Amino acid sequence: MAPILTNSNQPVVTERSPYTENGTVCVKNPHLDSLDEDVLYHFGLGTKTHNLPQMFGDVKFVCVGGSSKRMKAFAQFIQEELNLKDGRREVENICAGADRYSMYKTGPVLSISHGMGIPSISIMLHELIKLLHHARCRNVTIIRIGTSGGVGIEPGTVVITDTAVDSFFRPQFEQVVLGKVIIRSTKLDKELAKELINCSKMDPEIPAITGNTMCTYDFYEGQGRLDGAFCTFSTEEKLEYLTEAYTNGVRNIEMESTVFAAMCHLCGLKAAVVCVALINRFESDQITIPYEKLMQFEQRPQHLVSRYIKKCLGL
Amino acid sequence: MAPILTNSNQPVVTERSPYTENGTVCVKNPHLDSLDEDVLYHFGLGTKTHNLPQMFGDVKFVCVGGSSKRMKAFAQFIQEELNLKDGRREVENICAGADRYSMYKTGPVLSISHGMGIPSISIMLHELIKLLHHARCRNVTIIRIGTSGGVGIEPGTVVITDTAVDSFFRPQFEQVVLGKVIIRSTKLDKELAKELINCSKMDPEIPAITGNTMCTYDFYEGQGRLDGAFCTFSTEEKLEYLTEAYTNGVRNIEMESTVFAAMCHLCGLKAAVVCVALINRFESDQITIPYEKLMQFEQRPQHLVSRYIKKCLGL
Repeated sequence: MAPILTNSNQPVVTERSPYTENGTVCVKNPHLDSLDEDVLYHFGLGTKTHNLPQMFGDVKFVCVGGSSKRMKAFAQFIQEELNLKDGRREVENICAGADRYSMYKTGPVLSISHGMGIPSISIMLHELIKLLHHARCRNVTIIRIGTSGGVGIEPGTVVITDTAVDSFFRPQFEQVVLGKVIIRSTKLDKELAKELINCSKMDPEIPAITGNTMCTYDFYEGQGRLDGAFCTFSTEEKLEYLTEAYTNGVRNIEMESTVFAAMCHLCGLKAAVVCVALINRFESDQITIPYEKLMQFEQRPQHLVSRYIKKCLGL
Repeated sequence: MAPILTNSNQPVVTERSPYTENGTVCVKNPHLDSLDEDVLYHFGLGTKTHNLPQMFGDVKFVCVGGSSKRMKAFAQFIQEELNLKDGRREVENICAGADRYSMYKTGPVLSISHGMGIPSISIMLHELIKLLHHARCRNVTIIRIGTSGGVGIEPGTVVITDTAVDSFFRPQFEQVVLGKVIIRSTKLDKELAKELINCSKMDPEIPAITGNTMCTYDFYEGQGRLDGAFCTFSTEEKLEYLTEAYTNGVRNIEMESTVFAAMCHLCGLKAAVVCVALINRFESDQITIPYEKLMQFEQRPQHLVSRYIKKCLGL
């Protein structure tokens, strides 16, 4: 993407955890204070039109995933798990008006869809971080629950990301700012990953491992798939790349983890990535598993994270 | 994003228009022929489960845009404009099952949402190009109708893209393939752009210009916005960057045009980008225009493209 790599002339964002002592989420933008109103355009929310502290002040967990339907299903599931079901009430999409993301709130849990790819989740995260800041939320944990392609692992395995790496297996995210590239760390919360693995051990129906997650800018050529509209490489070259990924500790591939890790790290949000592998990329490129199996696999990160949330809440 | 730039050791995709003589869409992937079935996973369609030639064989125009609701509205609008309204029938989302994109077909016009950002539209385009190929469609024109931030132009102006450029004002798209970067041309169809400008001249309610469109990987820091969760630059630095963009012929900024141009060029699809500017970025970052005005602006690319399609169909 970018020809200019970080060098001495360019700003490098240093790694630090800016979580304030009272656990609030820190935005890192001095300009925000001078805004009369902050419109979170892609959420269809704003500081003047909505009472954000009242709507979101009690949020402690944010779960995000690509698909809108999946995040609605998760909200409904967590509502039942936390015994918050008020009659037969359907969960309601808070962002329905904006038509970009879906957002559901059930007690202290926010469930948001982020679409596919780094740019899409990055817009959502900018507005989410500002939302949590405006709402004066404290000690928030954020977990991406998604799907992915496995690398040398059994389909259905849940991968709890140790480190998010780019297409070159580097633990970093390159952010272009005013035509210059800034390198950001993709560190995730080790303690949270450990707690999630411990939760998985309590459920034999959720096979889970930790491993590195590779994040790419596309699904076909960028992930070495042979079944896109374009393909300029051989099966052997594909396998060579996947083997290199495996050797670098990569156990699954998806499209959002690096920017997710980088942005959460930058604002001090405790973050984890929990994705199920739908296929083993050494064996296939196409996702042809039957619908029921797919649903079963997709629910595994949801069940694992629900177990973790319940544990945190003492339920 | 990528440290390895194209050099003599790496493959450079040469620019060529692979449209075959009979006008069919060329996929450039020798592996596809060996697939027993091609599952277009994110569309929820497949060559074995669906009769693609029967469903899509008559498609001549594909219009794509970020938002699902907007592309549904466009399908309904074009249905009325082409007098295809069969009773009160609602247009139906062909991809409802997959929950990733929305797709509507009204006569020879396909209307598809692509979400936000390069990765999201790239997945859609891979599967669309394969769909058009499998369906044996001929002489297809594809137009992105979107929204954007204007650079030194009046809000509401429709920009017909001359050249799609990246954050460094280069007319190219960098595609990572197996950990190597390939540079692709972002040429668009000059003739089609000219025809669209001519159509705009017939409607005084659609102010339109041609200009370069800058495509970024995010909405906040990448576009020099001062209102994201993070901002490390001053108002002056922002304005300096926007001025540099303006000097390089950039008249609007969005998040999909470079990969759209590159992929369409590669497979020989006649392509154009028609985006309305919602704001003038020299004046503001936040999109705070009233809903009615926003709807009016959003309809302008739709009305212009509808006019073009009707002209092509002799209506």
